[in-house]
Amino acid sequence: MAGPQVNERERAAMSRALRLAARGLGTTSPNPVVGCVVLDARGERAGEGWHRQAGGPHAEVHALREAGGRARGGTALVTLEPCNHTGRTAPCARALVEAGVRRVVYAVADPDPRAEGGAATLRAAGVETAAGLLGEEAERVNAAWLTSVRRGRPHITWKYAATLDGRTAAADGTSRWITSAEARADVHRLRAEADAVLVGSGTARADDPHLAARLPAPAPDAPAPVQPLRVVLDTTATAVRPGARVLDGAAPTLVAVAGDADAGHLEDHPHAKVLRLPRAGGGLDLTALLDALHAREVRSVLLEGGARLAGAFVAARAVDRVVGYLAPALLGAGPQALTDGGISTIADALRLDITDARRIGPDLRITAVPATPLTKEH
Amino acid sequence: MAGPQVNERERAAMSRALRLAARGLGTTSPNPVVGCVVLDARGERAGEGWHRQAGGPHAEVHALREAGGRARGGTALVTLEPCNHTGRTAPCARALVEAGVRRVVYAVADPDPRAEGGAATLRAAGVETAAGLLGEEAERVNAAWLTSVRRGRPHITWKYAATLDGRTAAADGTSRWITSAEARADVHRLRAEADAVLVGSGTARADDPHLAARLPAPAPDAPAPVQPLRVVLDTTATAVRPGARVLDGAAPTLVAVAGDADAGHLEDHPHAKVLRLPRAGGGLDLTALLDALHAREVRSVLLEGGARLAGAFVAARAVDRVVGYLAPALLGAGPQALTDGGISTIADALRLDITDARRIGPDLRITAVPATPLTKEH
Repeated sequence: MAGPQVNERERAAMSRALRLAARGLGTTSPNPVVGCVVLDARGERAGEGWHRQAGGPHAEVHALREAGGRARGGTALVTLEPCNHTGRTAPCARALVEAGVRRVVYAVADPDPRAEGGAATLRAAGVETAAGLLGEEAERVNAAWLTSVRRGRPHITWKYAATLDGRTAAADGTSRWITSAEARADVHRLRAEADAVLVGSGTARADDPHLAARLPAPAPDAPAPVQPLRVVLDTTATAVRPGARVLDGAAPTLVAVAGDADAGHLEDHPHAKVLRLPRAGGGLDLTALLDALHAREVRSVLLEGGARLAGAFVAARAVDRVVGYLAPALLGAGPQALTDGGISTIADALRLDITDARRIGPDLRITAVPATPLTKEH
Repeated sequence: MAGPQVNERERAAMSRALRLAARGLGTTSPNPVVGCVVLDARGERAGEGWHRQAGGPHAEVHALREAGGRARGGTALVTLEPCNHTGRTAPCARALVEAGVRRVVYAVADPDPRAEGGAATLRAAGVETAAGLLGEEAERVNAAWLTSVRRGRPHITWKYAATLDGRTAAADGTSRWITSAEARADVHRLRAEADAVLVGSGTARADDPHLAARLPAPAPDAPAPVQPLRVVLDTTATAVRPGARVLDGAAPTLVAVAGDADAGHLEDHPHAKVLRLPRAGGGLDLTALLDALHAREVRSVLLEGGARLAGAFVAARAVDRVVGYLAPALLGAGPQALTDGGISTIADALRLDITDARRIGPDLRITAVPATPLTKEH
């Protein structure tokens, strides 16, 4: 993407705005993360801000407040097209016009129909606009919210941990620890950024996972991150038993069961909610699950296990990001990270693009996204 | 490793010597690769060289020749302790003394008993010596030769190509192409650096591989790289049939068969040699294989397939380096890169250290070595 005509200061300011936006990951949902930097008429940074929490001021409001009179004749760099609707806060397009900003550069257009064309409003008021600067980076930081708006379902990250030869446990089932403490800490960061964490009944039975995140310290001036919703797919309501660690109240918990399952022990539980879903195949209807999560304003799901559940999401082509932690070890036997993806020949492989690969302690973390976008709005 | 007291110029010169040494990979076997930089008395680079080919001059000789009289009172940086024995060339320790070099810094001590203490000879002649500068890097570039001398068997690199979820082919056996053209070209570089390329009978049957390397253009002033020996483990002498691609004469070929196998079609073949080995387990005795290759002065073996053969080497703890090409794709079914490694529980996993991870086209190449050295000489 070529992007708009901008100068180096504007590019640097957008880069800064993206870093600010990322601070909101984990606290702004169901809203997008947004960062904004205001340059004065001479191109000097006059103000900056980011959206900290749903219901709180938008990024532009923070930045304009800091810039004060210096915004007049200046340029605002925003990671997302300024909003035009009056929700819990006043429209940002209007605020930018009133502050006398001469030019607004945004990275990604707002696909939310309720946004109603913030850029058009700006232009109608005589403000110059340009779109697409660092658009790919801005898409990435807002992947959860953009997926949610565009596809009507949460953004799905499949996370796995395996040896170099692709095993998630040894032949006897032992797996503590394949990856390092550093990698496991990084998984907690992934969880803290997600609205929900999802496992299947096999994982619930085998590991009795807790699934709560060790939350990071809040960013400066930011609200504390919140625990993601713990979701267990337990078709027959037999995997999550009384005393299961997900029922400890440390985070909200949703147990998805079949409509005909006997889930009395969960219906009455003070720390769990039961979600009844239609059956499909050998399990539950994933589309119905995603609809239900979307209706609860869950924008992002971290899929943590196991291999068959991941396979069902692959088969549904409902994986938006893969994060693999590869431990430098060989096992030569044991279960795989992914099974039953419905792929039988190489031409049908789910092809990805690696967007990041880096060391996490002794391990390697690989991040990849589907090579062919699942939908094409642009 | 702290390393010796050196100045920045000496460190830079050793780094240069290591790069020069690496140019010899693929042409110096059965000798080590060696690089040398000579600094004059003022610390300026006066000469440099590397060992290009077995039987040709050693690195020190090239470097001293270029330095001429400027070597007097100077410092020689050598990636391997200078030799002290008269083989096909005169001893380098003597040449350094005669050139009037004041100080010799080498990266790795020579473990070859025939080398007979080049450093001691230098010190006896009043030349200052220091060892260990960039020793780890020097160990790595000479891993094949050092392993060969220390362990009495070739250095084994296991190479595999798999999807992110560890599959080497789809469920129907199709695998063209999991990895990119760039990754496949990189495998040819690995082959060209190896003395031998090894596959099992399953791979020979399934893929009829050619196993010759697309050789790179020779380095400046260097001999052309040579084709590695193609080795097929064919216990029953039934996998390599007349017309097999490895029998085309493009490179030498060795077919290892059991002592009692009927290998008449190979014994008479103009482009193959037969190696008879004892049986062990379901296949051939790997120790006997490695002994036979070592006796042929094969210093390095690239293990290319398949999964069971790799497992046999893992079980024998005879893997010195792992090079994995990971394609950004998911399959969810299909064969694994490694099976039957004799590991049943996580505590017995073969633990590695990642030494390099980089993009090769769209793929990721991961290089790792055993975390616990197989032998400890130092």
